[in-house]
Parts: sequence; structure tokens; C-alpha cells
Amino acid sequence: MLNLVPFVSVDRMMKLVHRIGVERMLTDLATAIETDFLRWGQFDKTPRIASHSDVGVIELMPTSDGQTYGFKYVNGHPSNMKRGLQTVTAFGLLADVETGYPVLLSEMTILTALRTAATSAMAAKWLAPRGATTMALIGNGAQAEFQALAFKAVCGLTEVRLYDIDPTATAKCAKNLAGTGLTVTPCRTAEDAILGAQIITTVTADKTNATILSDNMLGAGVHINGVGGDCPGKTELHRDILTRSSIFVEYPPQTRIEGEIQQLPPDHPVTELWEVIAGRATGRTDPAQVTLFDSVGFAIEDFSALNYIRSKLAETGLYEDLDMIADPDDPRDLFGMLLRAA
Amino acid sequence: MLNLVPFVSVDRMMKLVHRIGVERMLTDLATAIETDFLRWGQFDKTPRIASHSDVGVIELMPTSDGQTYGFKYVNGHPSNMKRGLQTVTAFGLLADVETGYPVLLSEMTILTALRTAATSAMAAKWLAPRGATTMALIGNGAQAEFQALAFKAVCGLTEVRLYDIDPTATAKCAKNLAGTGLTVTPCRTAEDAILGAQIITTVTADKTNATILSDNMLGAGVHINGVGGDCPGKTELHRDILTRSSIFVEYPPQTRIEGEIQQLPPDHPVTELWEVIAGRATGRTDPAQVTLFDSVGFAIEDFSALNYIRSKLAETGLYEDLDMIADPDDPRDLFGMLLRAA
Repeated sequence: MLNLVPFVSVDRMMKLVHRIGVERMLTDLATAIETDFLRWGQFDKTPRIASHSDVGVIELMPTSDGQTYGFKYVNGHPSNMKRGLQTVTAFGLLADVETGYPVLLSEMTILTALRTAATSAMAAKWLAPRGATTMALIGNGAQAEFQALAFKAVCGLTEVRLYDIDPTATAKCAKNLAGTGLTVTPCRTAEDAILGAQIITTVTADKTNATILSDNMLGAGVHINGVGGDCPGKTELHRDILTRSSIFVEYPPQTRIEGEIQQLPPDHPVTELWEVIAGRATGRTDPAQVTLFDSVGFAIEDFSALNYIRSKLAETGLYEDLDMIADPDDPRDLFGMLLRAA
Repeated sequence: MLNLVPFVSVDRMMKLVHRIGVERMLTDLATAIETDFLRWGQFDKTPRIASHSDVGVIELMPTSDGQTYGFKYVNGHPSNMKRGLQTVTAFGLLADVETGYPVLLSEMTILTALRTAATSAMAAKWLAPRGATTMALIGNGAQAEFQALAFKAVCGLTEVRLYDIDPTATAKCAKNLAGTGLTVTPCRTAEDAILGAQIITTVTADKTNATILSDNMLGAGVHINGVGGDCPGKTELHRDILTRSSIFVEYPPQTRIEGEIQQLPPDHPVTELWEVIAGRATGRTDPAQVTLFDSVGFAIEDFSALNYIRSKLAETGLYEDLDMIADPDDPRDLFGMLLRAA
């Protein structure tokens, strides 16, 4: 029944996460994304299509591997939190390239949180210092716990040091992470949080050129996972940090516009993460090196995540069928189908 | 409940069309589109984002008027018909620009057929010769009946002359139009179909540079409604027709790529339809003039159609609520919501 499109609601996505297990799902997603990054050349790639307003952005993120087409709708509205709404909400779709018919519609607010964390941890596996066990987590909002658990599941993280300008966000994050097996240390300052951390994750939400990390806070031999800076005018790191870091990105044409590197000249050298995974470029070469994953989120990560969800439909049954595509018996007789419905 | 997004299924869309009446709905849509064309400058505009494959195209068509954001997903796969599938299927979404939260998800296979026909008829109201009552309809597939009824409802058409290379398509179309009040004349050739017609609509599906109309078939004083040529390499009219027509388009940056005018130099003069409606440009100035509406379909038309559907939700109740947006009580506690769902 091609007119029916499997739909994964928020409720079913949460059930699916618990059926699989959060950490297992984060590990699976990291593997799925890494596998798709390995075949980078097979994908149609384009910077996401953004519609900006004073208060936020709405974006469409399409890609295709020639067999399957996928896109995500996602918004980013930092002001939403004040009115009790999510900063980021999303949904996504997969379609068959051969026919153009959709084959999956899914909530992606939760799935984006999972895939973003999985991508961060996958990148850190290639870039962080060997034996890294402690992460500073600056920004303790909606994405924070997902980051902590992804690094635990994928990179063997054992301790997370939390900081947020709002202590209630830190308390919320610490409470949610209790019982996960991670040592959780709430901190009063960002400086305190990064003490002894080999990995520093910044995931704050303000749409400003903020300085969450300044250069003098930072020693050698750390990996920075910069997640929160992801649109024009929204950065988290001081420019001086960037100039002494080895910078790794997803898709340069998009990251140049949206990432931390929007602060740098357009020809500043960066390395594409997929090239490190494919053995075409080197990742970390020196224990003292500062590496930066300037993450903005790319369409292929959503494609990987949606395909993963699709692969779980049959065994879990966690979907419903949506009557979304008009599909008359005679394809030329759309009007006749409408007439007969009277 | 912002987590719930009203969804209009195919079944409910058909019920809605019958509740309102097909011709009334076509007239309403023509008015809605015309009204939005009048405020053209308020919209964010971009050519649609196309993902091409050997057999077809998948496109995203976003726009925003600063208050509401809308986009349509639509495919075009001429080879689908052979396997019993629709050439064009679509769905669309509206969202609140202020929050980024979706406010409507709707099937748009039927709605696209309606809005395309409504746009054609609206354009003809401004461009066709006064008192036009007869239309040649070349290409009698899924879009044909919608075109015929839109011209009847909006322009006062009384006779339609049908031609298709496949006589069974013509028979299907004639059967569906019986009882609508239109005089329906099946024809054996395109030449026969255009006899006495003041309006010529071409709406064929092949993805080729076809010549549905050649220059010597065409007299003076007609309006051509060119609907089927709508992507690179897919045209219907001989180039010589274009050079002696006054050409009207929706959004030049998109039509230059996709329309009949892809056959012409990029600086060939065209008039934007909205300018005619707004009184900033002239439409038909001479009864002997050949006017061409080189229609490819633009995002604002879908935006108008989706807003029209949205305006009918409360009074008709013809929708269901989709659990599509994760919306925890504390917006920073997405993970906590997930935990509590266990």
C-alpha cells in the first residue's frame, strides 16, 4: 500500500529508544553515521536551506544517496525556552528515489538530539586524546544528557563536569544522569568545569557571538566538541582558540556559514571529518594538539538516523500508517478517485 | 497542545473538497493565490531545491511571509505511470515563524492538482482574450479535469476540446467531465483540438524536450497555458512560439531553469504575473497578441493553498492530530521526558 506512509510519533520514538536502550541506540547511530560518512562521495550534498527571522531559523536539510532521499525540517529558536517551548524541534522523511514516494515520516526532535550526540562521540573517537575519560559539559540544556551518554557509550567516558549559567539547568542534568554510571560533578564556573577534562563540549543556545571558552582557559592536549554554534551570528569559542586548533568539520560549504569558523577567513584550513574516517586525512597527530570538531549538524547524519529508524519498523511495529499519498488505481485518474469519494 | 500537529489525510482532503464543492474550492484557491501574489514583496522567495535522478526529481519548495512558513515536498516521475503510480505526489507543511513549531501537515497530491489549475485559471483571467469560452486541453492525464473545471469556474469556459496521444486518457477525461456542464469534444489530433480555441492548455508528462505545439499550428489572439514543461529538459512548446509570444511567469529565477523559457537566452524579456495583478505591468494589450503563461508552479501557490486548508480546519473538523513534536513541560528537560516515558 504505497499510499500509506509509516509514521513514527514522539510517543513511539520514546518507546523505540527504551526498547533498544538509550546507550545502545547512541552506539548504533554513531556506527550508522560513521558508515555513511565512509561513503561520503555517494551523497548529493547541499548546505541546508535556511529561512531566518528575528527570533530564529527554520531549515530544510535534504540529501540523497541515489537510492533513498531524505530531508529534515528543523527550527532553531533560542527565545522559545522563555515561553516553555523547545529551542529545536524537528521531523524528517525518507523517500524512494526511483518513484519519489515517501517511505517514512518520523518525529526528529528526540532523534536529532540522539544523532547530534552520536555524531559528536563518533568524531571524538577519532580526534580526542587516547584514554580520555573526563568531559566538561558547558551548557546543560536539552542536548546535554544525550552528549554525556553518547560519550560514555562510544568513547568510554567515566566522568562529566557540568556547568551552565543557570544552576537549575545543571541540577536538572545531574539528576537525569544519576544512576547512569557516570561520575557527575556540577561546577560553579566554566573554568572549574574544564579542570582535568580531556574533552570539552560546548552546547549553549544563545543566538549571539558568545565566548563560552576564552583562549586563556584552555591548556594543551584537549579535544573541543563545539555543538552550540550552528548558525550565522551564533558562536561559542573565542577566535584565538580557533587559530591554535586543528579544526575538523562536517561539510565545509555549510560550516563556513554556520560554524565557529565563520569567525575566520574563508580559506582557513579545515579537515573534513569523513576524510579522517576514510584514512584520507590524519586526525590527532600529537597528544599536545588542540583538536576542534566544529559541529553544525549535516543532512547525512539525519539520513543515517532515519534509515536506522526505518530498519527497526518491521521488528518493533512501533509506527502507524498515515494516509498521506493519493494513489488511484489508474494513475491518470486522480480526478476520478476524487469523484468516487463523493 | 503544541505537540499535536493537525494533519489532513488524503481521505479527509477528498471529503473537504466535496464539502466545499470542487468548483467553489478552485475559485477560492484562485482568489487566495491572487491575494498572495498581490503582496509578493512580503515573501521570502527561492527557486525550489531539486534532487534529480535519471528517472525523476524530488523537490522542496519553501517560502515565508514573515508570520507563517510553508513548504511542499513534491516529486515528478514521468516513468511512474507505467508502473501504476502517480507522476506527481506531494505533501506540505505550515509552521509559525515566531516559534518554528509546525501548525499544519497536509496531503498535497490532490491539493497540488487543485492549486495548479487554480493558478492557471487565475493567470488566464488576466491574460486570455476577452470572452474566451473554448479551451484546447492537450494532455488528458491526472491534471486535465482540474484544469477544465478551474477555467469553467474562474473564467467562464463553456467548451473543452481534448487531445492525448493515448485515446484512453481522453476517454477517461471526457467521462469524468460529463455532467459538469462543460461541452466536451474529444479530438484525434492536437491540430483538431486547437480549432476555435482561444485558450490552449498543454499539460503532458514526458520528461523530454517535446513539441506538443509547433509554430505553424498556432494562429493569432490565443492564450497558451503551458503547464507540463516544468523542469530542466522538459518542455512542450516549439521555440518559435516563444519568440512571438508575450511571456508571463511566476518567479523568473526558477522559470529560467525549469520553464519553456529554458530554450531562450537568459535575458529574453518576460513579465512577472504578480506585476500584472498589482497593476505594475500590462497583461494582454492586443486581441491578436499571443500570450503565454509559462507555468512551473511556485512555492507561494502552495503556501496560499495550505493556508486556505488551515482556515477550514475548525469549521469542518476534517483533520486528525499528529503527535509529531516533542514538547516537555520544561523545555530543557527533553531527556527527562524520555526517561519518564520508560
